[in-house]
Amino acid sequence: MKIVVTGAAGFIATSLLPRLLNSGDEVHGVDNYFLGKREFVARSLGAPNFHFYEFDLLDRDRVIALFRDVRPDLVWHLAANSDISFGTKYTDFDLKGGTLVTYNVLEAMRLAGTKELLFSSSGAIYGEPKVMPTPENYGPILPISLYAASKAACETLITAFASNYGIRSWIFRFGNITGPFPTHGVIHDFILKLKKDPTRLQILGDGRQSKPYVHVEDCLDGMMFGHKQARESVNCFNLAVPDATSVNEIAQWTIEAMGLDAKRVLLEYTGGSRGWPGDVPQVRLDTRRMESLGWRPKMKSAEAVRRSISETVEQMR
Amino acid sequence: MKIVVTGAAGFIATSLLPRLLNSGDEVHGVDNYFLGKREFVARSLGAPNFHFYEFDLLDRDRVIALFRDVRPDLVWHLAANSDISFGTKYTDFDLKGGTLVTYNVLEAMRLAGTKELLFSSSGAIYGEPKVMPTPENYGPILPISLYAASKAACETLITAFASNYGIRSWIFRFGNITGPFPTHGVIHDFILKLKKDPTRLQILGDGRQSKPYVHVEDCLDGMMFGHKQARESVNCFNLAVPDATSVNEIAQWTIEAMGLDAKRVLLEYTGGSRGWPGDVPQVRLDTRRMESLGWRPKMKSAEAVRRSISETVEQMR
Repeated sequence: MKIVVTGAAGFIATSLLPRLLNSGDEVHGVDNYFLGKREFVARSLGAPNFHFYEFDLLDRDRVIALFRDVRPDLVWHLAANSDISFGTKYTDFDLKGGTLVTYNVLEAMRLAGTKELLFSSSGAIYGEPKVMPTPENYGPILPISLYAASKAACETLITAFASNYGIRSWIFRFGNITGPFPTHGVIHDFILKLKKDPTRLQILGDGRQSKPYVHVEDCLDGMMFGHKQARESVNCFNLAVPDATSVNEIAQWTIEAMGLDAKRVLLEYTGGSRGWPGDVPQVRLDTRRMESLGWRPKMKSAEAVRRSISETVEQMR
Repeated sequence: MKIVVTGAAGFIATSLLPRLLNSGDEVHGVDNYFLGKREFVARSLGAPNFHFYEFDLLDRDRVIALFRDVRPDLVWHLAANSDISFGTKYTDFDLKGGTLVTYNVLEAMRLAGTKELLFSSSGAIYGEPKVMPTPENYGPILPISLYAASKAACETLITAFASNYGIRSWIFRFGNITGPFPTHGVIHDFILKLKKDPTRLQILGDGRQSKPYVHVEDCLDGMMFGHKQARESVNCFNLAVPDATSVNEIAQWTIEAMGLDAKRVLLEYTGGSRGWPGDVPQVRLDTRRMESLGWRPKMKSAEAVRRSISETVEQMR
């Protein structure tokens, strides 16, 4: 199968590429190295069935030309600004890197006749929902960050293209995905801070924010399972775990994993319930839809976080 | 109060402007005359409290400059490609004229400190919902046209800006709005066709599509009522009537209103259940939320349609 992976040098693709390449697929990866890293994608560059292209997906002509040349069967569209707080500084950042890029990918798919799309959406689109755990059919969708607004916009572009141009799509609304090769996120942030100064740790908000953490290997298992088993025109799933982990727990476990004495690390809280403007402090996603399809994550939230901390400490050593 | 009206030469604004100007507001209207018409806005140009600007809202610098100069208290953001079928021909048309334009307006509001926005969304965002009449909290939002995808994207941009930058918003998900001064739509289309050839009438689809029609005066009453009475950060309402009218009924009533003998007009159906790709053939919107706020439309669907036909026949004479 011919597959295009966007955000190919990013966090999720770095774990995805070996799976696809080992299964013999012809994989074409694109990244502009904005969040993605050269050393991540370098791990796959030796594979004969891997082709990598460095360009910005905002360049619509390049995207269309790539799809015209490759004529992929399937797209894993993972490219995005996944660093939510960044989008609050530049209000058109997610509009460009999320919405416009996704339009470009869909238009290129339409022109090339590509019929299947897997998309990394986010539970953040629910904003601060009145129902928790939040199911996929929750409404109205009132996101509170520009990142989430863009993810929701991408979903609606995908469903419109699906309906008009016969593109089948799988939309996965992620919990927090963790694992090795992070480009951002709380674990990455804590490790960097503690390496710089092991005597203190700044924690955004009050540390009580708690969210479901999914290990990237579970995430990929779930996406592949959903792609295989769900065959509607638009297939929309929460991809999460039923439980949750707090930022304070992640801080304690990271300190331990780095071999530091928790009593000698001063925790400094920036205060307030949110980590940043647009942060949703309490997230619980209803996972029954994936369960009814027959899929469950192998790791609960705490296990996913603990394993990711140790993998990331190792990888960033 | 200082008010910016986008799409000021369009169908809805043409009925809105006299109301705002008569109440003494300082009104600044913008239109690029893509769908809007010079003769419509000309009706208001004589008012001393009306200022009109001809430019494309895609020109972000112009939008920002206008808001910086005017410092409006309130925006009626009505500009859009409201001709849904057009968006199926050019796949980035609604993305530009809807999503990007709305971003520009929100960014200009943020920079100018404007705090209130009324937005014309659409019941089309529900796609082909499993619940009818469809309430505001219906999910998931799976639109089937690029027009509706853009309206949904605009809603999420608005809610994110509302949350991050203290902008209060009123989102109205319209049924089909009818009345004098249409720029497009089924009544406008039928009258044009019958004027050209009174012996035959082409009907898109099978004519059985049926939707709730709201007269533009009711629409404006409802928006003004909602703006006054609902004071959440984001206020989201279906703005419709509980009943519906079929395209076949509209055809018959238009033929009658034009003084033609229905027996001598050959109805030619293009066939299929949809008027165009992305058309939602059966629409019923749950109107209880506006009702519980204390508002009801004066006209039911049939009355709104009949009055609009006679107003439009008169206006296009």
